[in-house]
Amino acid sequence: ALIGLVAVPAQAETVETRGGIRITSDDGRFKAQLGGRIHLDSNVWVDDDEFGDLETGVFFRRGRITLEGEAYGWRYKFENDFAGQSGDNGSGIREMWIGTTLAGVKLRLGQAKPYRGIEELTSSNDLLFMERPFASGSGIYRQYQTGVFADAAGSNYGWGAAVYNLRNGADSDDDTDGVGATVRGYYLPIMDDDVLLHVGGIASLDNPANGKTVGASVRFAGRRGPSQGLGSTTEDQQSFGVELAGRVGSLSLQSEYHFVTLAQPSGDDTDLSASYVQVSWLLNGEVKPYDVGKGAFKSPKPAGGRGAWELKLRYDLIDVSGRDPEIDVSQLAAGANWYINPNVRFMLEYIQGESDLSDGTGVDGSLIAARAQLSF
Amino acid sequence: ALIGLVAVPAQAETVETRGGIRITSDDGRFKAQLGGRIHLDSNVWVDDDEFGDLETGVFFRRGRITLEGEAYGWRYKFENDFAGQSGDNGSGIREMWIGTTLAGVKLRLGQAKPYRGIEELTSSNDLLFMERPFASGSGIYRQYQTGVFADAAGSNYGWGAAVYNLRNGADSDDDTDGVGATVRGYYLPIMDDDVLLHVGGIASLDNPANGKTVGASVRFAGRRGPSQGLGSTTEDQQSFGVELAGRVGSLSLQSEYHFVTLAQPSGDDTDLSASYVQVSWLLNGEVKPYDVGKGAFKSPKPAGGRGAWELKLRYDLIDVSGRDPEIDVSQLAAGANWYINPNVRFMLEYIQGESDLSDGTGVDGSLIAARAQLSF
Amino acid sequence: ALIGLVAVPAQAETVETRGGIRITSDDGRFKAQLGGRIHLDSNVWVDDDEFGDLETGVFFRRGRITLEGEAYGWRYKFENDFAGQSGDNGSGIREMWIGTTLAGVKLRLGQAKPYRGIEELTSSNDLLFMERPFASGSGIYRQYQTGVFADAAGSNYGWGAAVYNLRNGADSDDDTDGVGATVRGYYLPIMDDDVLLHVGGIASLDNPANGKTVGASVRFAGRRGPSQGLGSTTEDQQSFGVELAGRVGSLSLQSEYHFVTLAQPSGDDTDLSASYVQVSWLLNGEVKPYDVGKGAFKSPKPAGGRGAWELKLRYDLIDVSGRDPEIDVSQLAAGANWYINPNVRFMLEYIQGESDLSDGTGVDGSLIAARAQLSF
Repeated sequence: ALIGLVAVPAQAETVETRGGIRITSDDGRFKAQLGGRIHLDSNVWVDDDEFGDLETGVFFRRGRITLEGEAYGWRYKFENDFAGQSGDNGSGIREMWIGTTLAGVKLRLGQAKPYRGIEELTSSNDLLFMERPFASGSGIYRQYQTGVFADAAGSNYGWGAAVYNLRNGADSDDDTDGVGATVRGYYLPIMDDDVLLHVGGIASLDNPANGKTVGASVRFAGRRGPSQGLGSTTEDQQSFGVELAGRVGSLSLQSEYHFVTLAQPSGDDTDLSASYVQVSWLLNGEVKPYDVGKGAFKSPKPAGGRGAWELKLRYDLIDVSGRDPEIDVSQLAAGANWYINPNVRFMLEYIQGESDLSDGTGVDGSLIAARAQLSF
Repeated sequence: ALIGLVAVPAQAETVETRGGIRITSDDGRFKAQLGGRIHLDSNVWVDDDEFGDLETGVFFRRGRITLEGEAYGWRYKFENDFAGQSGDNGSGIREMWIGTTLAGVKLRLGQAKPYRGIEELTSSNDLLFMERPFASGSGIYRQYQTGVFADAAGSNYGWGAAVYNLRNGADSDDDTDGVGATVRGYYLPIMDDDVLLHVGGIASLDNPANGKTVGASVRFAGRRGPSQGLGSTTEDQQSFGVELAGRVGSLSLQSEYHFVTLAQPSGDDTDLSASYVQVSWLLNGEVKPYDVGKGAFKSPKPAGGRGAWELKLRYDLIDVSGRDPEIDVSQLAAGANWYINPNVRFMLEYIQGESDLSDGTGVDGSLIAARAQLSF
Repeated sequence: ALIGLVAVPAQAETVETRGGIRITSDDGRFKAQLGGRIHLDSNVWVDDDEFGDLETGVFFRRGRITLEGEAYGWRYKFENDFAGQSGDNGSGIREMWIGTTLAGVKLRLGQAKPYRGIEELTSSNDLLFMERPFASGSGIYRQYQTGVFADAAGSNYGWGAAVYNLRNGADSDDDTDGVGATVRGYYLPIMDDDVLLHVGGIASLDNPANGKTVGASVRFAGRRGPSQGLGSTTEDQQSFGVELAGRVGSLSLQSEYHFVTLAQPSGDDTDLSASYVQVSWLLNGEVKPYDVGKGAFKSPKPAGGRGAWELKLRYDLIDVSGRDPEIDVSQLAAGANWYINPNVRFMLEYIQGESDLSDGTGVDGSLIAARAQLSF
């Protein structure tokens, strides 16, 4: 059982093309990989009069170190976001879990993302736009949770299911806030060299305990834009969603629709519906890789020395009914990504965001946002 | 003095069998090892009526990354607990020190654990139960301190001594809170293949400054169970303890008794006495390794492909006199550990805890606790 | 583009002699290096009556892990200080950036130190004294900022320029606090084996936004000594400085003078002038290396088995005019450094510090300070 260190030759069969630091013991039973990601963002406001004259700024959106690997057939992952430490315990833990495979099903115990939608499960390194759309970025799908995660995939389908200790939104304190469960399935009716079509569906139930609430709020017009509360519940939250995504050569499309009910102790339930459609076109003919084990797309690898160029467009909408006032928040974004090499990309986008409440209030504005990203 | 990187062959003479990432320079003068530990716990309450209906929950007990090694004959260690960052400075530092060896004595400057008892010095990866007994887990022995640490060992004995800047309990802020000193010695009268007997003793003095207090409180019935304050002092705290431990084949026993006096400015001093006895039986014939350099036991290595199975039992008691009301806290725990491979184990235990105060108050209850652990 | 791990042979041409963990992919396109530093300090007060009877203490001044390297010609750096995490987001990030080289100019995007003076840019591992002099340690030059950094160097000159999002002193929260810009140039008229002469100059402008302030305060008589506020502004801060440094064999000298104006909305501006001179003599004939790419000195490498010994002396002064009361703070320090090997050094110094206000108040005192340092 003694273990040393050996050099890993470049292996053609590996799916990982980003590099990073990988070490394998000479008996192959212990593996470790050290990775990192830096996302440095900047906002330049074009029209922020109604947002209260926000400041142009530069800030780290993410600064993560990741250590993951295998030990005697068990997998593990540590990931801490040094640019996102918060809460009473100063924790920046993102994923942290122990995993194994039983009867073809990958099991993980610890903290990870529930299977709540194709965009939610896409790595932040591979997102088409700087921020996820409302469906996954609004707090409806509350990011990392602690519990049991199971998934499996065939050559053209996959599923995932998770049961977890519900944390109250972004609050990472010690409290036990109830239980949540999520299931997701996806299928690829077409999957050839030219055309790929992905359809998927998800359902989840979140049940806060101890009089705690779960709820949704949306930040629009970028990460530093205004925030709009959408509703909350001390009862339960039911969510259903469908995914439709695909590509034809260098043209990709991805869309989701989610319907969420926040049960209320009396009166009408609060209903949220969130949807988006986003389109990408890779100018030099690259094709966006699809990871069937995850059921999500990844960033393209540059085909030539000049890097890969991508044009992108998204329309994003969330509306709330069953409460007074009713709320509509929408966002239009367009821009370009430049993938310089497998580790570095730059993103540039123009975003117009708007909130519209049935009592006549609401704000709108626009900005240009940019990101410098290095990840491995 | 230039240094590169070379592969380390598996070495039969190394005592480390957990793997991990080890790197040595080609002249052997620089070494580094990267390790990690994930302890994921769950509590299921069997009887928590008197504890106020606590919630069943899942949480990280520890999530540490460790970097340690050597540089030109000097040793170093960094260890941060990302699941335990707290205090004004958000620090999760556990061990962080610089060390060397002088005349056969290992010296360390920085933060480490004072030599305060066999269970206190056992790695959290190697504990028999999920939580340490009251003697080391009550705040009587205040974990990591910053100062000077010295220890040495022969083939069947060892000692350690430390002087340190006292921190006020778990408070990791910048204040200087006084001085503490601890000494420990141990001897193994019997140490053959079948039978090992360890006897040890410790003494320590903690002297808080600036009107700060040191004190003890105990959390019983698991990490999320109720807490009971035991006393404190602005004067000084004297502690004496004895250790008796050993094994006969696959059967291990460990016991400690500690007597602590919290001096009071007027009236009687507060006296605490803490004791426990714990027994382990490895079903498949494995033997618990003993580390004579540390004077503590380690986890067994699985002998076969099915892993090692261990049954365990502990009775744990702390009582306080010289104050009103007097306090007794006791705990009975039984369970099993499953060591799947050198890096992964699962723990399961039933715990019954009870506090009993001389004014007739007190609470009792019980739970089932489980841990998934990966460490390297 | 697939990448594995290969051993790096010791390379005679590398300038790095500290060791550490370095890994390079077999195609040389991905590189990573893992470093660390532990600075453990102790203060023993000789005369602290006027400081309010401070406590002797032991504390970590720095406890950093660094990951840096290259990816396809782009450079990156992560550095977190686990002993210095603070602020609302619990961040201990020091440097974190993505860099490349364009037309011979090194560009970095992210968080780094503006080019504000030779001592400010000297690595904390290579400082002559435990703390930087007032010119860089007073908050006049506010350490790490987030923005764009550019620098280049020839064989005997160099320059740097930075534009950054101003953070309000040590406050690392999310606010956007304005804009700052700094330029620095240096030239070496003499640069032979025996004699090296460095002259340099800097200018910077800091413009706080949103009614935020920037300002200066100075901590004297060591890191735990008293703090004296020097002034602040909501308008702008202009700074000019000159550097003069050099060595003749084993004798080194370094000096800076900085003049800072804190503009005031009405009345006189507040003027600060800070200067110091420090001298080092390496007893065994070692020569302090100079890094022309950075325009700063580094620690000597021990020539023999007994390590390198260095005697050191500094006089340090800052005075404030244009406000009432006017303020003078001065400090005299003398001591010795022992460089045991390329990774470990010990520092010992006697410091006498004094504040003198024109209203007749002020305090003075003295202490002995020591550091144990391991870095790689």
